[in-house]
Amino acid sequence: MNSPLPDILARLDADAPAAEARLIDWLRIPSISAQPAHAGDCLRAAEWVRDQLAGMGFDAGIRPTAGHPVVVAHHPGPGPDAPHLLFYGHYDVQPPDPLALWTSPPFDPVVVEGPHGRRVVARGAVDDKGQTAMWLEALRAWHEVAGGPPCRVSVLIEGEEEVGSPSLDAFLAANKAELAADVAVISDTGMWDIDTPAITTRLRGMVYAQIDLKAASRDLHSGIYGGAALNPINALSRVMGGLHDENGRVQIPGFYDGIAEITNAQRVEWDSLGFDEGAFLGDIGLATPAGERGRSGLERLWARPTADLNGIWGGYTGDGSKTVIASEAHAKLSCRLVPGQDPAKVAEGIRRFVAERLPHDAKAEVTIFTTTPGIEVPADSRWVAAARGALAEEYGRPAVLIGSGGSIPVVESMRRLLGLDSLLVGFGLNDDQVHSPNEKFELRCLHQGARSHARMLAAFAAR
Amino acid sequence: MNSPLPDILARLDADAPAAEARLIDWLRIPSISAQPAHAGDCLRAAEWVRDQLAGMGFDAGIRPTAGHPVVVAHHPGPGPDAPHLLFYGHYDVQPPDPLALWTSPPFDPVVVEGPHGRRVVARGAVDDKGQTAMWLEALRAWHEVAGGPPCRVSVLIEGEEEVGSPSLDAFLAANKAELAADVAVISDTGMWDIDTPAITTRLRGMVYAQIDLKAASRDLHSGIYGGAALNPINALSRVMGGLHDENGRVQIPGFYDGIAEITNAQRVEWDSLGFDEGAFLGDIGLATPAGERGRSGLERLWARPTADLNGIWGGYTGDGSKTVIASEAHAKLSCRLVPGQDPAKVAEGIRRFVAERLPHDAKAEVTIFTTTPGIEVPADSRWVAAARGALAEEYGRPAVLIGSGGSIPVVESMRRLLGLDSLLVGFGLNDDQVHSPNEKFELRCLHQGARSHARMLAAFAAR
Repeated sequence: MNSPLPDILARLDADAPAAEARLIDWLRIPSISAQPAHAGDCLRAAEWVRDQLAGMGFDAGIRPTAGHPVVVAHHPGPGPDAPHLLFYGHYDVQPPDPLALWTSPPFDPVVVEGPHGRRVVARGAVDDKGQTAMWLEALRAWHEVAGGPPCRVSVLIEGEEEVGSPSLDAFLAANKAELAADVAVISDTGMWDIDTPAITTRLRGMVYAQIDLKAASRDLHSGIYGGAALNPINALSRVMGGLHDENGRVQIPGFYDGIAEITNAQRVEWDSLGFDEGAFLGDIGLATPAGERGRSGLERLWARPTADLNGIWGGYTGDGSKTVIASEAHAKLSCRLVPGQDPAKVAEGIRRFVAERLPHDAKAEVTIFTTTPGIEVPADSRWVAAARGALAEEYGRPAVLIGSGGSIPVVESMRRLLGLDSLLVGFGLNDDQVHSPNEKFELRCLHQGARSHARMLAAFAAR
Repeated sequence: MNSPLPDILARLDADAPAAEARLIDWLRIPSISAQPAHAGDCLRAAEWVRDQLAGMGFDAGIRPTAGHPVVVAHHPGPGPDAPHLLFYGHYDVQPPDPLALWTSPPFDPVVVEGPHGRRVVARGAVDDKGQTAMWLEALRAWHEVAGGPPCRVSVLIEGEEEVGSPSLDAFLAANKAELAADVAVISDTGMWDIDTPAITTRLRGMVYAQIDLKAASRDLHSGIYGGAALNPINALSRVMGGLHDENGRVQIPGFYDGIAEITNAQRVEWDSLGFDEGAFLGDIGLATPAGERGRSGLERLWARPTADLNGIWGGYTGDGSKTVIASEAHAKLSCRLVPGQDPAKVAEGIRRFVAERLPHDAKAEVTIFTTTPGIEVPADSRWVAAARGALAEEYGRPAVLIGSGGSIPVVESMRRLLGLDSLLVGFGLNDDQVHSPNEKFELRCLHQGARSHARMLAAFAAR
């Protein structure tokens, strides 16, 4: 039998406008997992993708969790002997604020022209609705042209990735048999550039903490109490101002314990990528690398941990002046972790760091939202080999093996709870403004990503 | 002629319920000077008090400024030979937030029972509508019983005290002849306790600054940029975390230049007050004095300068987690100043402090809202002597001479621009929650304050 792949690729080309319209439909749903008011929208986004899967021959359903629901779907493919893939994506998105910086409403997607052609601007455009849409479209084309995918395919699309996937582990553990597969396939990472496909073999983990510092029992007039009463904003600044030393080393106790240096081979491969940190920072209006001294740019981004304050607030923040000594001050702190660091120990280190620096009369509550380790996935598997071949055919050049500075908690969960390695093939670009105002996805990436997934399905099946 | 004072005091006693109702009327107007949306309410509050003054024989008007208007009124009293008093007050109030901590709406005054009897709870209850209402009621009683006050009286009630009186100096300078008087009388300070009247002879000044720190041209994903891009919240914490050394000394360059130590006599008088800092802090849930080591409590509060962050904000401050590296971070910083410090040099010191600690790639804008010096007013004038006598008659014990940790910019302006000393006789209590949620004023203070002002008017006239 001739391969149906050429017809499938032609079908994807012809169907591209409809595929774009479908993605835009999905992007209209403000499925913000962090905000309880949007729980209904999260459910609508789950229902939307369940309906898409049901329409391409999947047995698809919505499954409750303690938080937002999970979409699970199965397709038997050509039969029980075919390789079994578990596709993972997430339908939830980050909060869109600061809203004032969006040039168009975040949930009213617009298609505009950019240097790489047309792009769609909306919250979730790339992360992760756009990247999920690529493999949905590849599965649709296989369904329409060949009656179904050439592999057995299971699908898991969660709705809590942007809040640290709090319900996912319990769901994976409870549905381990149903979710059995040979490998997990995930598109939530980036290309090297728009012409160079990439497979990600390193991901950073994360510990996300909120620190709530309390002092007096009420807000105070600084004229009456200034000089006698503890100021919790002064205290929070003093505590958090000590997060790094002058060399950019994080001062959380035990923070660097267990980290292995990257291998020489890895260093050589990353150096060969010719990463231009000046241009990388220049794009965002910066010039001087921050972070640990004495490390290369890619090492700092992919193989070294960080501590970043993601938010801080307290006291009067309105117009003009108010001479108040606040009773509370707050910060959100995230640490990106690398392989070797124990997230639980880092969380404990954050508690100790705060407690040891706390002045008399201040009380601190440290709430940990997320703990996921940094991980490495095998670079020498049959899945990586098949994917590299498919990507080389689509792009006319080899895929590079890269790291990512981001966190995809599910990768570690898949390994720990389902025994599955993950194949991370993503089609985002550095300037996609992920988590920022005016998030966008290049429609060329959407289209070539869908074609790449169609090719990879063929390559996985051909053993 | 017999003194009308006994009849005036009896009139104040009989009219107390109506006086309370009038104050509550005024408190219903949300005259928040810091918030442009409340400009109309500021005007209404000015009109309200103008109408009160017009109703007690004053030639009263509303006068425009570059900001909120000023109420000016004059009464000739018994004639050109009588002493001439300039009463000062302000009709504007602090913003009420955080709203959630109020037990009743801030602009819907309620009268509740407390340990000292009935009290009114509302924003502005004491600062400064309640304290202004005391001398308005005293003037009203003199008008109703004796046909007018026994002194010439001018009145100046401004609407920008809570934002640092930006328009007042120009107004005083432009109306110097009209505002000529022998002394300014101001009730915007406190008693020693509810049984012990006080005259304030020291006030702290203030420099209020906003620091806006900017880094990248947009918000960033910490997974993509963490380890390379400058985080402005980390940077702001680091800068502001260095405001004090481990002994509580402010690290702004030149901050302590020019400060004279208090005299031994002053130290002895303050020590004799038996200030219980443990109880003072215990009332607000604190136990350990903050601020400069090696100074007594009253010295830190009345005679030493401070640096307090009144607000801080940046990044994500909503529910849950968001892994963003913000593009901006902000802080509001106020320094309470004491006599000898030059506010302009302190402001320049704040700019230098920020600039010297700023990391590469961060840009900082420092906006100065307020600069007023700390001041001392003469304790040996005929006005102080007359006031002490009147207060001793009302309270049955001598008034104490105290300092205040707060700032009343007009006191310095009166001296510099009109050549007037101020007599600071106030009736607030430490637990009045000034600038905080649930601000209150004891109705006993309102009433005895009005009686005290009626007595002081008689004492000023009797030379």
